[in-house]
Amino acid sequence: MKRLMGAVLVSTASLSLPALANSDVAKLQADPNGWASQSGDYSATRYSTLDQINTKNVGELKVAWTFSTGILRGHEGSPLVIGDVMYINTPFPNTVFALDLNNENKIIWKYEPKQDPSVIAVMCCDTVNRGLAYAEGKIVMQQADTTVVALDAKTGKEIWKATNGDPKRGETSTNAVLIVKDKVIAAISGAEFGVQGRATAYDLNTGKLVWKAYSVGPDNEILFDPEKTMSLGKPVGKDSSIKTWNGDQWKIGGGTMWGGWSYDPEANLIYYGTANPSTWNPSQRAGPDGKPIDQKWTMSIIARNPDTGVAAWAYQMTPFDQWDYDGVNENILADIDVGGSKVPALVHFDRNGFGYTLNRKTGELLVAQKFDPKVNWATAIDMDKSSPNYGRPQLVEKYGTFHNGKGADVNTKGICPAALGSKDMQPASYSKLTGLFYVPTNHVCMDYEPFKVSYTAGQPYVGATLSMFPAPDSHGGMGNFIAWDAGKGKIVWSKPEQFSVWSGALTTAGGVAFYGTLEGYFKAVDQKTGKELYKFKTPSGIIGNAMTYMHNGKQYVGIYSGVGGWAGIGLAAGLTNPTDGLGAVGGYSGLKQYTNLGGSLTVFSLP
Amino acid sequence: MKRLMGAVLVSTASLSLPALANSDVAKLQADPNGWASQSGDYSATRYSTLDQINTKNVGELKVAWTFSTGILRGHEGSPLVIGDVMYINTPFPNTVFALDLNNENKIIWKYEPKQDPSVIAVMCCDTVNRGLAYAEGKIVMQQADTTVVALDAKTGKEIWKATNGDPKRGETSTNAVLIVKDKVIAAISGAEFGVQGRATAYDLNTGKLVWKAYSVGPDNEILFDPEKTMSLGKPVGKDSSIKTWNGDQWKIGGGTMWGGWSYDPEANLIYYGTANPSTWNPSQRAGPDGKPIDQKWTMSIIARNPDTGVAAWAYQMTPFDQWDYDGVNENILADIDVGGSKVPALVHFDRNGFGYTLNRKTGELLVAQKFDPKVNWATAIDMDKSSPNYGRPQLVEKYGTFHNGKGADVNTKGICPAALGSKDMQPASYSKLTGLFYVPTNHVCMDYEPFKVSYTAGQPYVGATLSMFPAPDSHGGMGNFIAWDAGKGKIVWSKPEQFSVWSGALTTAGGVAFYGTLEGYFKAVDQKTGKELYKFKTPSGIIGNAMTYMHNGKQYVGIYSGVGGWAGIGLAAGLTNPTDGLGAVGGYSGLKQYTNLGGSLTVFSLP
Repeated sequence: MKRLMGAVLVSTASLSLPALANSDVAKLQADPNGWASQSGDYSATRYSTLDQINTKNVGELKVAWTFSTGILRGHEGSPLVIGDVMYINTPFPNTVFALDLNNENKIIWKYEPKQDPSVIAVMCCDTVNRGLAYAEGKIVMQQADTTVVALDAKTGKEIWKATNGDPKRGETSTNAVLIVKDKVIAAISGAEFGVQGRATAYDLNTGKLVWKAYSVGPDNEILFDPEKTMSLGKPVGKDSSIKTWNGDQWKIGGGTMWGGWSYDPEANLIYYGTANPSTWNPSQRAGPDGKPIDQKWTMSIIARNPDTGVAAWAYQMTPFDQWDYDGVNENILADIDVGGSKVPALVHFDRNGFGYTLNRKTGELLVAQKFDPKVNWATAIDMDKSSPNYGRPQLVEKYGTFHNGKGADVNTKGICPAALGSKDMQPASYSKLTGLFYVPTNHVCMDYEPFKVSYTAGQPYVGATLSMFPAPDSHGGMGNFIAWDAGKGKIVWSKPEQFSVWSGALTTAGGVAFYGTLEGYFKAVDQKTGKELYKFKTPSGIIGNAMTYMHNGKQYVGIYSGVGGWAGIGLAAGLTNPTDGLGAVGGYSGLKQYTNLGGSLTVFSLP
Repeated sequence: MKRLMGAVLVSTASLSLPALANSDVAKLQADPNGWASQSGDYSATRYSTLDQINTKNVGELKVAWTFSTGILRGHEGSPLVIGDVMYINTPFPNTVFALDLNNENKIIWKYEPKQDPSVIAVMCCDTVNRGLAYAEGKIVMQQADTTVVALDAKTGKEIWKATNGDPKRGETSTNAVLIVKDKVIAAISGAEFGVQGRATAYDLNTGKLVWKAYSVGPDNEILFDPEKTMSLGKPVGKDSSIKTWNGDQWKIGGGTMWGGWSYDPEANLIYYGTANPSTWNPSQRAGPDGKPIDQKWTMSIIARNPDTGVAAWAYQMTPFDQWDYDGVNENILADIDVGGSKVPALVHFDRNGFGYTLNRKTGELLVAQKFDPKVNWATAIDMDKSSPNYGRPQLVEKYGTFHNGKGADVNTKGICPAALGSKDMQPASYSKLTGLFYVPTNHVCMDYEPFKVSYTAGQPYVGATLSMFPAPDSHGGMGNFIAWDAGKGKIVWSKPEQFSVWSGALTTAGGVAFYGTLEGYFKAVDQKTGKELYKFKTPSGIIGNAMTYMHNGKQYVGIYSGVGGWAGIGLAAGLTNPTDGLGAVGGYSGLKQYTNLGGSLTVFSLP
């Protein structure tokens, strides 16, 4: 506990300082002309106050310019715009470009990291990267091989590099780092390889390690304070993680991260979600008594002090996961009405199909409702504070895969949603105009057959065979773009799409919500009604995030196209066996009739 | 001679039949709604009678839709449009797509040839393919590995395949086949590997070999009739090729083809150009007396009867090549005014920098003038019919590389144009509206150092080290898009571009000429003045050819983007040594500041 208490002391000291965020980043985020961070702002609202493009004229949009990244496969994330320069990066090999918006988007510099291509073999769900971060003249990227690199934004020269993990152990990265104050916060991925998930803070100026906070393990590794770290209104207590694991399985226990960061400068807390426990075979993870055991803090939202890494609170959405319903999706911060009063909320759309609204200061659970009507593995979240199951999903036995420890080699059919969730990492947007959340969703179900698997470092440690398929009777499509009232936990409108909506949303003060589709359409809809106002077929399927900026008095909207990610892994990696891609290949086999691999940016403006 | 005479007899018989072209293809070419062949029509004019998009409104063009081919590197050629279906193919691996223009351009079928990727190593100047041909319900493609494949246009199923060459001997293909009547005419490339160039005709319905006509060799292999095959008004005589070679060097003598076909149904003649003699070291190719020797019929335009392959006439532009000025560029057929009278002309813009106008029926040379003012290797073409040098370039000794047989290891500096020519394969267009030719040109010079090389089958047989660089004082750019009066042999206007214009031109009855640039701009200019009326930055550099079609009453203009080809080989193949890419890498090193690899189609229309 000595190490932990030291950290807590630092934390307390830090909290007495004024909340500074990173003043450079905060200032840039507040300027609607730029797009200074992947999520638009620290609250991850992905909302812009720009309104030159609005519901009245968005139908007249035309393509202003395009840029091929020179790399195929899934293009997640989005460009950044800082002043007159646009910064772009690519899937593996994670090439970075700086483009001169004042000079016909000429390439100012190009940075090509040297990475061992063998890392591709240990990336579970395509070679994606969720983009760059910027602060104080530096572009910071986390490479596939986990290296965190800071570049001089003017020249592209390396300032520092840090090794955040070891691909030989299955540790990789798809994360866009979060920069808060003088910290660069990095993530590690690889829960399908038995990685012990963690967030790690580096010094922005030097790349020196500041703190490391595991998701699973002893208190001094997870930086949880038994008395002060809260969950659902109570202190988590001693050994909150390891006592929910059988023996030392936590050491290969998963709980990794894909990013999806947000930050509340007032509370001085960063928020992120953690992935599945390893392996996907739940019977192998049962407690010593053969019964389900939580495997904390996998599948959780964790709020931490960015200065120390110490957790303020945590909430586990899916205890003892049986479905790979990772909790990695983004957490959007917004002050919204819940039950008649304004609440400092955190809104999270989980892979498990429930939309959660929590008090972001305390971690109190306020609302938890299905945002996908097809969800069948649980009936509801228990909201009775006096119940021992408070905050837990009420399971439907036949759609579990544990089956009282007898689940191995049992093929459980028709579970909804599939492992890739009612929503995956593609970020939702919160519109300050309507107070609603705009959410890209999936309607995909699965058959799930766990099997016994042994751990070998660097080898897949999945332990289940999945087959995915479109949800039956699902509005005629595999996904919907929905508007969500997070105070009420209700869908306001729902726009069906042929395939899962695997692209991040953008909302603007012009009343428009933008997103892309897996077939490659970039779409604009009315925030109020969901009415489609514009669509354009980009070169390849879209799994990137819509962004906007203003340059020389003209508003632009941009999006990557380049099909891939988990949903598009069949196309991206050339897989055809239906159970390949952790079951996604079969689910999305129809996609190949609509699009091919690609890798480009398309930028739109009014004529 | 027995074999030849047999062929001639067949030829005579065939000539007595009505000239049918391929009635299906001719009919489709005459319909401006489609784009039925790579060159627009048998005359290779690349002119469309569509005029919905015209000089008045072309500035309002917007991108209608886009399509990623899923393959990077150089995208030459263009799509075809037959009825409501668009057919696309890619560089190696030469994937073919059929897209449903009535159904949001959905992929109807996709054909992926199986080719040994080792063929890439013997492709001299990128893995390009110049596109598909269509006739009678069949899509015909010549793959990189030389295989000619006919697909059912409705289903993409293979109908037949023919092996046209052997990549193990350096034989490859970048050619789009020509379909005339019931013949599919294929080409072979690889003059940098000592290939014996040839055109080969296959039966459209069965794929059976019909005739094979070499460019170099004995009369019965080149299908030249000593008495009837003409050159500059005279019969070529016996052994017209082999007597211009030292010993049996013709067997590895080059004279290959890149395509650039045209066809005159009335004369029943097909036209094409042949490439350089192998090796590039001229001293190694000198005659038995140590003096220059023509190396016929390399560097030549050849007119052949498509039924028999027998040559009607031939004209050699660059005897005893010392610069790699291949004669492979297209031959455009148009009836134009020359010296006050209408002539059935063939117009050819040669790599050597001269624009040639010939009578296409007889091969008579009418006009030969520089279309690139920077040309310095020759002063003029001798037009004196009484001269022994009639039709030959008047050489400038210091810009030769033979140097009386002492040229090996001598670095001759400042030769203009460079080996890739004042114009490369990117096809020009003839506008019936203005009677002018619209020509994409290069202003690139070179230093050329021949060296002794031994022939080994399948190994490079180049024999020269080249360094290319922008022509000094060349209008501020490495290329111009020019309008050319082929009757007078004069430039009408010339529009400078930063890099060589490596994209095929299109002209329309709307008065517009379209082309693309290596940086990736798609441009529209006024045919009369060259004034730029529209430009748009496509994802990657353009080396494809502009095409147009009409669908549901709307005119579209389309172009591939995907940088590569000889000019873009540095980017395409990741080469950085200036003398790599046969000298092109150094010449185009600036290109990397403007564009990246790509592979997509961009289609434009009016709003």
